[in-house]
Amino acid sequence: MIELYHAEPVANSMKVLICLKEKGLGFVSHYVDLLRFEQHEPEFVRLNPNGQVPVLVHDGAVITESTVINEYLEDVFPEPRLRPREAAARARMRIWSKFVDEYFCPALSMIGWHVMVRRIAQAIDKNELERILERIPLKEQRDKWATVAGSSFSEEQLADSRRRLKVSVDRMEAILSEQKWLACQEYSLADVNTYSMVAGLPRLMPKLLNLDSSPHVLDWLNRMNARPAVQEALEMPNKVPESLRAFGT
Amino acid sequence: MIELYHAEPVANSMKVLICLKEKGLGFVSHYVDLLRFEQHEPEFVRLNPNGQVPVLVHDGAVITESTVINEYLEDVFPEPRLRPREAAARARMRIWSKFVDEYFCPALSMIGWHVMVRRIAQAIDKNELERILERIPLKEQRDKWATVAGSSFSEEQLADSRRRLKVSVDRMEAILSEQKWLACQEYSLADVNTYSMVAGLPRLMPKLLNLDSSPHVLDWLNRMNARPAVQEALEMPNKVPESLRAFGT
Repeated sequence: MIELYHAEPVANSMKVLICLKEKGLGFVSHYVDLLRFEQHEPEFVRLNPNGQVPVLVHDGAVITESTVINEYLEDVFPEPRLRPREAAARARMRIWSKFVDEYFCPALSMIGWHVMVRRIAQAIDKNELERILERIPLKEQRDKWATVAGSSFSEEQLADSRRRLKVSVDRMEAILSEQKWLACQEYSLADVNTYSMVAGLPRLMPKLLNLDSSPHVLDWLNRMNARPAVQEALEMPNKVPESLRAFGT
Repeated sequence: MIELYHAEPVANSMKVLICLKEKGLGFVSHYVDLLRFEQHEPEFVRLNPNGQVPVLVHDGAVITESTVINEYLEDVFPEPRLRPREAAARARMRIWSKFVDEYFCPALSMIGWHVMVRRIAQAIDKNELERILERIPLKEQRDKWATVAGSSFSEEQLADSRRRLKVSVDRMEAILSEQKWLACQEYSLADVNTYSMVAGLPRLMPKLLNLDSSPHVLDWLNRMNARPAVQEALEMPNKVPESLRAFGT
């Protein structure tokens, strides 16, 4: 049996939802309401001590980290194949996914926290916030909540994240002007792992991602949006109020 | 033909050297002298636009990122096997390697830059340093050089890195008190990828890593040091003066 603990079909939850849908795998969906801080409940922290979604439970094995979960799904359910057959292309898939995890996603995340999570944090009563912070297992997450509940990130930090987003989109554009998909001419986990980072950008940051500066990225995004697996993943529950959806499509 | 562009048998170069030696693969060694900034020479940057070692070139395919290189070697030369056969253990191998790349290594790296690279940077003439900085492709690397050439990292940043190192060693100790190796009962890339992070710690930070607080980590380190592949990797050229070797064994 496959069970997935996940939030909305955005960010890291979306990476695994797309992969499951591409493979046509049925799963028991456990919706974790991040706005109710269910990811910090003792029950969930027993499952993932980091208190983060998504978490896959497959026949008792608990797998965390969305990028690793997708490799796991590929190891266990190799068809349809989402890892290139050729080893060098497979390496490019992993190099790109690593770049997304370590560079692209943290930059986007900071903007998302500043734009969206800040509004949530600042609406919470101080004593209640104290109680919420105490339960967050990772110091790094606690610090981010404390930052956006206070004066948020500095203009210098935000500018650097915007610079990194531009580096990321430019790098994507360069790759996609040479080949159809991010690892090679074949659709792969590199594309699956990147979709949720890019989906909201044309609306959220039109100066960064538009037809003039990044036509190949937009074409890639259109092809991603047209995939049945992506459409099915987008139909999963989304309880975040429309007014707070910074990065959804 | 396998070619490896690498520096001393420490840090990320060491991860790939161990993997090659474990698999008994012959390779053409290209020593890149980091203290002469050969990693920023136009010729090297053409190979890896990030200007970083190690780089593997196999039958024309250029593979970067040590963690990805080791998965590539496993894909192409599966014997002797360094990825657990069982998918859940393989996922634990990847989760741990990701933790090393994103948390353990950056913390250790900051201390290493502060202790060792700072002395190098501060000995360089200002105009010469300017010229070196200009050639560094990654802004993040340029910023680190400028930081250690100046007043270095703040006490708060260094304290946070030391805290993260303790979290890392404690997490290792917890895992290794339950099982023989970092992914499972079997030696794997999780161990290969971690060795160079830990090898220098007992000497460099004896309060962090000692027989009282982390006996299982020390036992693991002794077993790693006894491996012929690790010993062969350690015999690779090391041109860093003894006085500057912060993290070697």
